[in-house]
Amino acid sequence: MPPLSLERLAELTGAELRGDPACQVVQVASLDEAQPGQLAFLASKRFVPYLESTRASAVILSADYAPRCPTNALVSDNPQLAYALAAAALNERPRAPAGIHETAVVDPSAEIAASASVGAHCVIGADCVIGENVEIGPNCVVDDACEIGADSRLVASVTLCKGTRLGRRCLIHPGAVLGADGFGLANDRGRWVKIPQLGRVILGDDVEVGACTTIDRGALKDTVLHDGVKLDNQIQVAHNVEIGENTAMAAHVGISGSTRIGSGCTVAGAAGIAGHLELADGVHVSGLTAVSRSLRKPGVYTSTVPAMPHDQWGRNFARLRQLDDLFRRVRALEKILQENNTDAEPK
Amino acid sequence: MPPLSLERLAELTGAELRGDPACQVVQVASLDEAQPGQLAFLASKRFVPYLESTRASAVILSADYAPRCPTNALVSDNPQLAYALAAAALNERPRAPAGIHETAVVDPSAEIAASASVGAHCVIGADCVIGENVEIGPNCVVDDACEIGADSRLVASVTLCKGTRLGRRCLIHPGAVLGADGFGLANDRGRWVKIPQLGRVILGDDVEVGACTTIDRGALKDTVLHDGVKLDNQIQVAHNVEIGENTAMAAHVGISGSTRIGSGCTVAGAAGIAGHLELADGVHVSGLTAVSRSLRKPGVYTSTVPAMPHDQWGRNFARLRQLDDLFRRVRALEKILQENNTDAEPK
Amino acid sequence: MPPLSLERLAELTGAELRGDPACQVVQVASLDEAQPGQLAFLASKRFVPYLESTRASAVILSADYAPRCPTNALVSDNPQLAYALAAAALNERPRAPAGIHETAVVDPSAEIAASASVGAHCVIGADCVIGENVEIGPNCVVDDACEIGADSRLVASVTLCKGTRLGRRCLIHPGAVLGADGFGLANDRGRWVKIPQLGRVILGDDVEVGACTTIDRGALKDTVLHDGVKLDNQIQVAHNVEIGENTAMAAHVGISGSTRIGSGCTVAGAAGIAGHLELADGVHVSGLTAVSRSLRKPGVYTSTVPAMPHDQWGRNFARLRQLDDLFRRVRALEKILQENNTDAEPK
Repeated sequence: MPPLSLERLAELTGAELRGDPACQVVQVASLDEAQPGQLAFLASKRFVPYLESTRASAVILSADYAPRCPTNALVSDNPQLAYALAAAALNERPRAPAGIHETAVVDPSAEIAASASVGAHCVIGADCVIGENVEIGPNCVVDDACEIGADSRLVASVTLCKGTRLGRRCLIHPGAVLGADGFGLANDRGRWVKIPQLGRVILGDDVEVGACTTIDRGALKDTVLHDGVKLDNQIQVAHNVEIGENTAMAAHVGISGSTRIGSGCTVAGAAGIAGHLELADGVHVSGLTAVSRSLRKPGVYTSTVPAMPHDQWGRNFARLRQLDDLFRRVRALEKILQENNTDAEPK
Repeated sequence: MPPLSLERLAELTGAELRGDPACQVVQVASLDEAQPGQLAFLASKRFVPYLESTRASAVILSADYAPRCPTNALVSDNPQLAYALAAAALNERPRAPAGIHETAVVDPSAEIAASASVGAHCVIGADCVIGENVEIGPNCVVDDACEIGADSRLVASVTLCKGTRLGRRCLIHPGAVLGADGFGLANDRGRWVKIPQLGRVILGDDVEVGACTTIDRGALKDTVLHDGVKLDNQIQVAHNVEIGENTAMAAHVGISGSTRIGSGCTVAGAAGIAGHLELADGVHVSGLTAVSRSLRKPGVYTSTVPAMPHDQWGRNFARLRQLDDLFRRVRALEKILQENNTDAEPK
Repeated sequence: MPPLSLERLAELTGAELRGDPACQVVQVASLDEAQPGQLAFLASKRFVPYLESTRASAVILSADYAPRCPTNALVSDNPQLAYALAAAALNERPRAPAGIHETAVVDPSAEIAASASVGAHCVIGADCVIGENVEIGPNCVVDDACEIGADSRLVASVTLCKGTRLGRRCLIHPGAVLGADGFGLANDRGRWVKIPQLGRVILGDDVEVGACTTIDRGALKDTVLHDGVKLDNQIQVAHNVEIGENTAMAAHVGISGSTRIGSGCTVAGAAGIAGHLELADGVHVSGLTAVSRSLRKPGVYTSTVPAMPHDQWGRNFARLRQLDDLFRRVRALEKILQENNTDAEPK
């Protein structure tokens, strides 16, 4: 990559430059490890001690810390965003070469844009439509009738089952599986009978799906992730779930069937959301929290049980089984005191 | 697919037809979206409002709702089962063509039925036995000495490690890994030493395994899933676990080593079951529940902590650390009142 | 495998032989199933009933149980370790043949040791360095600039993203993904903007990574697993995490970004550890436990909520929302009694 001037980086990031516009940087680095020619970033107050001794040629930071910056400063209201944009500009990923690798197996009915890249050992099924500049890395399977919008990328070892549709600029990490059957079963006197899963998985534009995340096809209607949804690794999205725009979820989250999640939500790691619920826009679920009822108001919801030393836990958690009983005992005490010590109550 | 008459569907589903036996339907659809020529299904009371205005040509429902059905009715004691059977009859999946794809790498010692299908880029190891009508989708790895019973299907990107055995009609979704080493370690003064994992994974008939689910081989004896077990996505089954017939588990469940689970059980999403336990037949474990002791009686077991608004959580959950102390304080209060107010006790 | 004499096994395991040094065994087996010619192992007190009737030719056990052993005994201070060593000696895995499978796609710039094995349908990117005796099983993807140390093994269907480095004797199970992008996002007025993930994944020597486990590359610095770390299946290790030597984690554990975990720790199944924390050496986290603060002292930490019958749960867990209120009520009662019954307090 060629270096970029701070003048150019200020333009790209919307930051205000305090310093030398002609100064060139070649890469981003952390405050403590940055060398001359590198651009650092003050991510939080915690790292201020590193600011004053940094060797970086420039630092992205908020106005509050600019006076303490010993070198060129790119001052931003949103330093994290400015950093993301600068780092992207300095690290454009080289695109895979256009064309279909000779070891890929592509159905003749698939329509693949000439600018798209299909990697080694990929399999592309019948009636697929692969858009402009799409990159499909090695060892991916794209089953029949899938559509992948322009500029999307399957990194490697991704499986798209029949009929899955991706919008533009989607990014799917290795091991992800989109469109596997939902878990739909009817019970016939103890024996399970499969309910055919006939819907699809539909992703909007700019959706990111993490490694080994699974998104099941709908039972009848589709499972839908709207524009800008970001999923971390090892998330499970069950059939007929709908996730609103710009909602982000961390690893190991599980969403049960037919639940609808609003836009602008965040769900932290390993939270579980039961089926057939509705979560409003702007709901934020904490890590390891169980959501078993609809959440109709925006806000933060939590049921994380914080770790404690094991013997402290042993003393306290056995008591959970007796909690209702304790409430009754306290109520009984209150009654006794009310009945017999009415004069004793606090004024 | 050719259309089916309601007369034929009544036969296939065991439902009682109220209406025109000659009426033809071509596909299933939801009550609200169904068009003429489609068959809908009243899944729960919640959807009754859609029943009266449905455009479906026929509806599967229970006798309770039949009087409100504006069109042909297929009346069933178990509408979900009738729907599953009807949907399957209307949506027979075309089988992959028999034969071995030219890009598959198959050990010459493998026995593969002529009716079986082995997809592109598959690898089939030495001494494997692949039964009649088995379908192995693209990019699967079947290591040495595996056996796959008739009519089973590996959808795509499945990995079976050495010696794994599947019964008949098993269905394994993409990304699943069967037969990886169990997590067996001995500790040598702080350093971990691997314990060889010498058992196998054995699946009965009609077992379904979800996407990215992992089932580890046994340490010495085998890990066994009996007939009709149904596993959703991203489940972890550790070495030497045994799961009884027709037990079903939802996504993200984890079962630790050597635990034996009975038949006809259900385990909801993200529940965790510790090792070396026994769960009786007919045990039902709720979502996000921790099972740390054997459950010897059928029934529902739960430890899900329900989400609450974050500030309410903050006030209440810090108290968990003081719960045992609170029990002592209440006991002290009870003693005082008993000793000094004996006449004040409730009669 | 040729049989081994008990004399040889005593040497290999450091156990003391009580019995016939010339006795030959061919395989390990469980106490109850062992046949003559097999070596069994008394794993815990629970299995003592099987000891007295075992048909094994020899049993590994601790000195406490040696007097009750009806056959040759290999007496060890650490029977599990002795078993691991004996089982390994009796079950050396045949190595895959050296060389590159004809279907593998290998960039000409990759350096692959002549003794290494690259399996069918693998893809090896530019500038990779693959060490002596490395085994890469079928359908693996090793992206550009990866390094794999001598004697390491990717079992099958493993994906290493760009720049990942493995030490010597690492073992990576199927479906694992190392080096996918960390989940780094900046928020631009509601819309998420990707933060480029520029670090790598670095594994020391003797690291084992379970099936479908994901380890994300660092954002700027690297994600580092030190020598001897052992990870079970379906674990998520986020960007910039550091895990100390000989720490072991069970399935479904999740570690959020930038957390540093000490050496000699254990984390049981499905525990979740928040981001930016520090866990000291020798910390042990129980299953399904949430760690949301740094743990600076060694010891066992727990927040597992034990399952109970569902109706008992229903009565007790609704009370969690009222717990803080209960503490206040008890405090009020205590005050009343203190103020009005001072003579009544226990001496």
